[in-house]
Amino acid sequence: MDEKTIRHLLEQVQAGQVNIDQAVDTLRRLPFTDLGFAHLDSHRALRTGFPEVVFCQGKTADQVSAIVARLAEHPGPVLATRATAEMADAVRRVVPEAVYHPEARMIVVERSPLPKRGGTVLVISAGTSDIPVAEEAALTAEVMGNRVARLFDVGVAGLHRLLAHVDLIMSARVLVVVAGMEGALPSVVGGLVRRPVIAVPTSVGYGASFNGLAALLGMLNSCASGVVVVNIDNGFGAGFAASLINQLDEESI
Amino acid sequence: MDEKTIRHLLEQVQAGQVNIDQAVDTLRRLPFTDLGFAHLDSHRALRTGFPEVVFCQGKTADQVSAIVARLAEHPGPVLATRATAEMADAVRRVVPEAVYHPEARMIVVERSPLPKRGGTVLVISAGTSDIPVAEEAALTAEVMGNRVARLFDVGVAGLHRLLAHVDLIMSARVLVVVAGMEGALPSVVGGLVRRPVIAVPTSVGYGASFNGLAALLGMLNSCASGVVVVNIDNGFGAGFAASLINQLDEESI
Amino acid sequence: MDEKTIRHLLEQVQAGQVNIDQAVDTLRRLPFTDLGFAHLDSHRALRTGFPEVVFCQGKTADQVSAIVARLAEHPGPVLATRATAEMADAVRRVVPEAVYHPEARMIVVERSPLPKRGGTVLVISAGTSDIPVAEEAALTAEVMGNRVARLFDVGVAGLHRLLAHVDLIMSARVLVVVAGMEGALPSVVGGLVRRPVIAVPTSVGYGASFNGLAALLGMLNSCASGVVVVNIDNGFGAGFAASLINQLDEESI
Amino acid sequence: MDEKTIRHLLEQVQAGQVNIDQAVDTLRRLPFTDLGFAHLDSHRALRTGFPEVVFCQGKTADQVSAIVARLAEHPGPVLATRATAEMADAVRRVVPEAVYHPEARMIVVERSPLPKRGGTVLVISAGTSDIPVAEEAALTAEVMGNRVARLFDVGVAGLHRLLAHVDLIMSARVLVVVAGMEGALPSVVGGLVRRPVIAVPTSVGYGASFNGLAALLGMLNSCASGVVVVNIDNGFGAGFAASLINQLDEESI
Amino acid sequence: MDEKTIRHLLEQVQAGQVNIDQAVDTLRRLPFTDLGFAHLDSHRALRTGFPEVVFCQGKTADQVSAIVARLAEHPGPVLATRATAEMADAVRRVVPEAVYHPEARMIVVERSPLPKRGGTVLVISAGTSDIPVAEEAALTAEVMGNRVARLFDVGVAGLHRLLAHVDLIMSARVLVVVAGMEGALPSVVGGLVRRPVIAVPTSVGYGASFNGLAALLGMLNSCASGVVVVNIDNGFGAGFAASLINQLDEESI
Amino acid sequence: MDEKTIRHLLEQVQAGQVNIDQAVDTLRRLPFTDLGFAHLDSHRALRTGFPEVVFCQGKTADQVSAIVARLAEHPGPVLATRATAEMADAVRRVVPEAVYHPEARMIVVERSPLPKRGGTVLVISAGTSDIPVAEEAALTAEVMGNRVARLFDVGVAGLHRLLAHVDLIMSARVLVVVAGMEGALPSVVGGLVRRPVIAVPTSVGYGASFNGLAALLGMLNSCASGVVVVNIDNGFGAGFAASLINQLDEESI
Amino acid sequence: MDEKTIRHLLEQVQAGQVNIDQAVDTLRRLPFTDLGFAHLDSHRALRTGFPEVVFCQGKTADQVSAIVARLAEHPGPVLATRATAEMADAVRRVVPEAVYHPEARMIVVERSPLPKRGGTVLVISAGTSDIPVAEEAALTAEVMGNRVARLFDVGVAGLHRLLAHVDLIMSARVLVVVAGMEGALPSVVGGLVRRPVIAVPTSVGYGASFNGLAALLGMLNSCASGVVVVNIDNGFGAGFAASLINQLDEESI
Amino acid sequence: MDEKTIRHLLEQVQAGQVNIDQAVDTLRRLPFTDLGFAHLDSHRALRTGFPEVVFCQGKTADQVSAIVARLAEHPGPVLATRATAEMADAVRRVVPEAVYHPEARMIVVERSPLPKRGGTVLVISAGTSDIPVAEEAALTAEVMGNRVARLFDVGVAGLHRLLAHVDLIMSARVLVVVAGMEGALPSVVGGLVRRPVIAVPTSVGYGASFNGLAALLGMLNSCASGVVVVNIDNGFGAGFAASLINQLDEESI
Repeated sequence: MDEKTIRHLLEQVQAGQVNIDQAVDTLRRLPFTDLGFAHLDSHRALRTGFPEVVFCQGKTADQVSAIVARLAEHPGPVLATRATAEMADAVRRVVPEAVYHPEARMIVVERSPLPKRGGTVLVISAGTSDIPVAEEAALTAEVMGNRVARLFDVGVAGLHRLLAHVDLIMSARVLVVVAGMEGALPSVVGGLVRRPVIAVPTSVGYGASFNGLAALLGMLNSCASGVVVVNIDNGFGAGFAASLINQLDEESI
Repeated sequence: MDEKTIRHLLEQVQAGQVNIDQAVDTLRRLPFTDLGFAHLDSHRALRTGFPEVVFCQGKTADQVSAIVARLAEHPGPVLATRATAEMADAVRRVVPEAVYHPEARMIVVERSPLPKRGGTVLVISAGTSDIPVAEEAALTAEVMGNRVARLFDVGVAGLHRLLAHVDLIMSARVLVVVAGMEGALPSVVGGLVRRPVIAVPTSVGYGASFNGLAALLGMLNSCASGVVVVNIDNGFGAGFAASLINQLDEESI
Repeated sequence: MDEKTIRHLLEQVQAGQVNIDQAVDTLRRLPFTDLGFAHLDSHRALRTGFPEVVFCQGKTADQVSAIVARLAEHPGPVLATRATAEMADAVRRVVPEAVYHPEARMIVVERSPLPKRGGTVLVISAGTSDIPVAEEAALTAEVMGNRVARLFDVGVAGLHRLLAHVDLIMSARVLVVVAGMEGALPSVVGGLVRRPVIAVPTSVGYGASFNGLAALLGMLNSCASGVVVVNIDNGFGAGFAASLINQLDEESI
Repeated sequence: MDEKTIRHLLEQVQAGQVNIDQAVDTLRRLPFTDLGFAHLDSHRALRTGFPEVVFCQGKTADQVSAIVARLAEHPGPVLATRATAEMADAVRRVVPEAVYHPEARMIVVERSPLPKRGGTVLVISAGTSDIPVAEEAALTAEVMGNRVARLFDVGVAGLHRLLAHVDLIMSARVLVVVAGMEGALPSVVGGLVRRPVIAVPTSVGYGASFNGLAALLGMLNSCASGVVVVNIDNGFGAGFAASLINQLDEESI
Repeated sequence: MDEKTIRHLLEQVQAGQVNIDQAVDTLRRLPFTDLGFAHLDSHRALRTGFPEVVFCQGKTADQVSAIVARLAEHPGPVLATRATAEMADAVRRVVPEAVYHPEARMIVVERSPLPKRGGTVLVISAGTSDIPVAEEAALTAEVMGNRVARLFDVGVAGLHRLLAHVDLIMSARVLVVVAGMEGALPSVVGGLVRRPVIAVPTSVGYGASFNGLAALLGMLNSCASGVVVVNIDNGFGAGFAASLINQLDEESI
Repeated sequence: MDEKTIRHLLEQVQAGQVNIDQAVDTLRRLPFTDLGFAHLDSHRALRTGFPEVVFCQGKTADQVSAIVARLAEHPGPVLATRATAEMADAVRRVVPEAVYHPEARMIVVERSPLPKRGGTVLVISAGTSDIPVAEEAALTAEVMGNRVARLFDVGVAGLHRLLAHVDLIMSARVLVVVAGMEGALPSVVGGLVRRPVIAVPTSVGYGASFNGLAALLGMLNSCASGVVVVNIDNGFGAGFAASLINQLDEESI
Repeated sequence: MDEKTIRHLLEQVQAGQVNIDQAVDTLRRLPFTDLGFAHLDSHRALRTGFPEVVFCQGKTADQVSAIVARLAEHPGPVLATRATAEMADAVRRVVPEAVYHPEARMIVVERSPLPKRGGTVLVISAGTSDIPVAEEAALTAEVMGNRVARLFDVGVAGLHRLLAHVDLIMSARVLVVVAGMEGALPSVVGGLVRRPVIAVPTSVGYGASFNGLAALLGMLNSCASGVVVVNIDNGFGAGFAASLINQLDEESI
Repeated sequence: MDEKTIRHLLEQVQAGQVNIDQAVDTLRRLPFTDLGFAHLDSHRALRTGFPEVVFCQGKTADQVSAIVARLAEHPGPVLATRATAEMADAVRRVVPEAVYHPEARMIVVERSPLPKRGGTVLVISAGTSDIPVAEEAALTAEVMGNRVARLFDVGVAGLHRLLAHVDLIMSARVLVVVAGMEGALPSVVGGLVRRPVIAVPTSVGYGASFNGLAALLGMLNSCASGVVVVNIDNGFGAGFAASLINQLDEESI
């Protein structure tokens, strides 16, 4: 029930064409969410920076290309995560401007890239095997209109590599820290800065890493105050949250 | 926002005291849930059989008696689960008609007991240690207006005890089956009847029962079709669900 | 020991060919279940609405087609769950009227569909990836003679989508709610209605979803009273239980 | 090695009292952290809004009062979490202006409260049993200089309670959502707003809640993008992170 | 339906007072378990060596003494496991011949001890802390009429202690091996003998022993063929099984 | 060091060719296990009923055939478990009398089958999917010289199928009970008999069966006294233990 | 069977008093471990630096004092771990020179302290709550004759505290690193040094630390090569292993 | 900032071209790690025995050959772990002197093998399936310049096989003990020797071994003092730690 319908009803009341009992009844029978729906929709109209997202894992290349094609009819950016090269080929046949980022395993359709707002989102990764997840986070934040810096392969067992970049670390506004194995990097980074740190455990590791559980528990128990955590391998979620935080004052929801 | 408010607004529109733009704006600014709220409330008014419930664990006797006293101002039944005798004493000082059921660890205030509707809810328990949970389920169903039969201490290791009551089992309309240890009883019962079986794992057991995890997993993996499960030791939840099922045709929500 | 044997024994007693001590001894030595077996069988004859079910996972297409062909000799419906298209092809070669439902991954042989009894079973799913499990539940309930409504892709992160259908939700007699990831949907639905809600966790998700464990634990700990749970991805079990509940008064076991 | 030491060395070089080889050698042999230490310390001087924190659990009342007394010699705020009333009494004997907040189980020493900066941090809790953790989050954020609003007891099983406050929810700048049991509330809230949502699982629940594991997994698997998670019962960490996010532009580290 | 009822029915058939159709019908309508029940009971009468057992944990001293007193009216042995000294005092007030074994935490009432049958049951324990569980196993087997030998404190880290008794080990007919921590002892013993080895994990240990889980998993994964396992700390179960095995040829069930 | 060596040394002492100091020194320097080794070996010579066993999983067909060929040079039986048809083909090329049992996934080389000793080992399985594990147990026991009976597909959800065979069950000397899903069958069987029951959990099931964990925990927590458990899917271990028990009096170790 | 026995037997052989068959038989019947036993014992005589150890947890003060008194009759050091002050009082009444170390919760009887050998064992702890475990490690190593240095409260969230001591860290010969929560410290330390690092997880933490599991998994998955791990809270084990490593060349076993 | 930069600055100070305030400021603004970096690098130059290591799992053959080729430009040894034969072929095309060890699944480039230092590292494995992990440990230690002995297939269920080699075991300086299934071997070995024992759990086993968890827990809970543990299947880590320990006095870091 949109505004027009309500306005029409009220005009009928005003004009005496509908009596009050009928109008009350009509309003009452509305699914109670319809007004709220409008409410949500108007607010949704403001969310231009929010990408439409497709989680590709478990879908066929045809399914992915069909969904992306439909979403790409709208002007905003489209992200497809966990995408294979084969899926990207299928998408490009129908949406030629789609770009595939193999390391991040993402397909991006970005007709008019958003202007960069807020400060820098710094994405740090512990090992080279963590890069796919880190790139997923970085690319998500970029597409959502953030300046993004990358600092990869600076795990805690080689502290000098991390500390050599302490100025970069300290100048970031929001940090996403990606690590597998013991997941210690967010604690070390969280101790260096007083900025929000979003920790992303990865399933990198073997034996008792239990597919990322060790890193996840490590991050949840971080001794550095202010570290928050997302799901294992959830680079997209971390990039999304980093963008929300970085653009707090840019948006007017 | 209740009907009166809407009616008043429409009368003002009808009378020309409020123009349509103002009325649309007023309606739009309503928290969208208010209509729904009314909707829910009217439906809530019909739920006379639904008890107010207090989960006592972790509360002091004073807190319990205060909460029960407040809830008992309404006409419907009040249940307090996981209650100690000391809590019951505190409650009876302010609500003298409260009754304490030590085995079920429940306090019941039931000013005008509901008429018994539907068929029989049969509560079966495997061992004597499961009785507190079974009694919690049975009492909950009784207070909600169901005929309840009890069949206790009929675990699967002594099958003859269970099979001696096969007629009682087959005549029940809904069955709640409570078991700890390996939690096998619901599978056996579920294989005898073609009625809904609600399985309740209990934390009874030791060693690798892991506080009811063994029984819970056993029940979720039951080879008998149609067995559904509630949380460990959640006798209240099982009794509640059994009542919902048993009175499907009695209520008119 | 069938009726003939007993009748013959009694005739011998009657004719004085067997004395009472011998007859008592013969009866006592009978496997005590034989009579009960008859008992169960006669009751089984009444269960016309209960499908024969084949769990196809881990079987070859040939095995599946052989089993279905054998079961299809009986008049009642046959369900094969977790079936592939290849299995369906093999089945249709021997049972041409078999129908394959690819989304539900089920093969159905339904010579004379059962009349629809009871109220509506509403199957709700949170995400598109949950649909195979939801369809398995829906189809199971339909084949067992229930009116089934579907409401898919109404996860809790987009509450307006769910609330837009509140009337449909409130008019259902039994609800099956299917969700992966955090498994929150049954709690929200369970708070809207006062009807039995059967929650089905799915293995949809990644990282710390641990193949459906997160959703399973979420549903078991639901704060909504009356929610009951089946095993992960067990759409068949949920549909079966929903049918048992919905047809409580239709059957006369 | 502080500035004085370095200055003195350079003066000796300038004066020709130490030759360059000696000076290089001296500088090289410095523990490499000493300069960095100064670096960190000067930055630490800017962190006036950051409270000193004592985790009281497992300490005696005497230990707590001694530690708080020492920290309270500095001008900034002091927080003691998981404190008992007895600990608070011990503290107040030596730091009379210490205030005990029994619900949050915190002792606060706040000589000159910080000015409130940024937008509103909204702390939402699902059940009454979650309030201690929620209050810990709220009080932490308040002491760190944030405007804090509270919205308690709005669990997902009674959606209308939550939706009645949708304007308050939408006007918050950062949200902390505290829930036990199935931990579904952050998903629902995260679907309503496009602001950072920090989810706090609590150990509230029983049976298969496994001391908060169910809620933790639920929140990590939230289907709402942008939800981040802290450790079970870690209200302090959530309040701390919320303050970091809310004051991103107020601070100049 | 006991023998008398059947005999009476047969007499009526013999006398022509009941025709065969009626008799068949009567027999068929019997709860099918009644005959079986008799069957089981007569077989139960033969089980004179089987003790009545009370699991005392979670019961009050009064409850224990009441149960033991009732069971002790029968001639067979009575065992009460997990009993405290206080419980034993209560029992002895009503059953003066009850004996308390503090290390095994058992109360034994054994009016006419059973003759010792079969070979020797050897109970081996790894550490001194495992002795309560080992004694529970040993005493159970003794009361059930077995010769029992004990070999305690021979853990695998001091192999010479174990090997010094290799003759005793090789002469046993059934072995119960009790160990906590890593639970390695059954593997070593199982490699020395070709007799049945019943492994009992204990909850002895700390840290990652997880209350006996480490020992349990170790025993289940034993590289020695023929090792079987009972629940954590379940000395009674192991002694019971050892007796069943040791007396296979003595009993005639 | 075998008997010959010792005898030769003693003869040298007797003949005065070696003095006592030298002899003591020689004996002392022996690895202390050598005598024991002899001891073990002589006892090993008696173990003719013990098969040599190859665990094929993770080996190539060539590796399996090479190992079996070598073991088959000895007169005793050879078992290869978890073998594929391809492995069996490879084996038969070099050991033509090898027999492949596809359901048990075992290759058996049995030149002179052992005489059957002891009573009957009864192998019971709950479902058809449990048959491979059950057959592995049955075949192992048969090859080791036991009479074996099979009772398959008698799960607890269809109790009448189990009870129809109560005489067979009661006449067994040792029982192996194989079940997946909730693993309830050993409890039921253990309650019917007073013979040793060896429970074998299988990884059959889905969802929260967690690859047999549910069945394993169920069996460890069995409420039937005397049930012992082996590892998940370990049919061989169960058959081996059953043979040890069944032949306790046949062997003279 | 010691040397005397063997010598006597050989003399009898030499003297013709015992024939060779008898002698072989005698030797064969020896428990095969007796020679080995002597072997082990002579080696045990060399182990003067190894303390006798009592694990006090779960024992009474009287039991502890009795055991310590007996062990203290020997000249070597005695350690009692997890001891309370009350236990220490009881011990000192019978062994006056016993010293209680409350932080390490250890009682030490050290009549003639061992000379310090090897390099320095450095014990590092992350937080103040980890100190009891760290002290247990340090004291164990000291009593076993090692120079021990301590570096406490240098967790990874305050990296500058750790790096300020980099020279101390680099000069240690063996390092014991104790940490709870996320257990990240051993990875950082292991990256700084190329010496053996023994990691000790502690049960310090809350929520999803799961009593030290998070720290344990973190340490096992350390990205720093050469880190080895002991059980949760096992300071004694770490100190013992550190001493074994540090004194590799001092001892001559 | 390398030495040149510092030297230049000091020369400017000496020459009066830079005043002291400027020089202090310059030094302070240096990233604090730069000096430390130099520090670490000089120490790194001493680590000639430390191999460069490539973890091949999850990489393509091309990636592995590219990385190994680059690392092989340096004179020290290169190790590639978890390598397939196909990877080795690819490597040998660019680094012809690379050697593939199929059992250890390692590629080794060792231009000038290091001299053997220290005592013997003994690598023991329980079963033949543990050999790949054991070989990985052995080869790692060899390449790092250690004498290595191997003792394979001496699991605890055949104790005589282990004890036959007690002299070899006792003469080792450091022991690596590799075992799957119940992981009991390190406890037995640790009880025989007083040398450092590094335990390596393997994922060998099935059912409730849970991919090595059973062995891991067993080893962490070892009753033998001084046993330390590495991650599941981490042969490389064990060999690396063994080398660190064995060469403690050879290196001069």
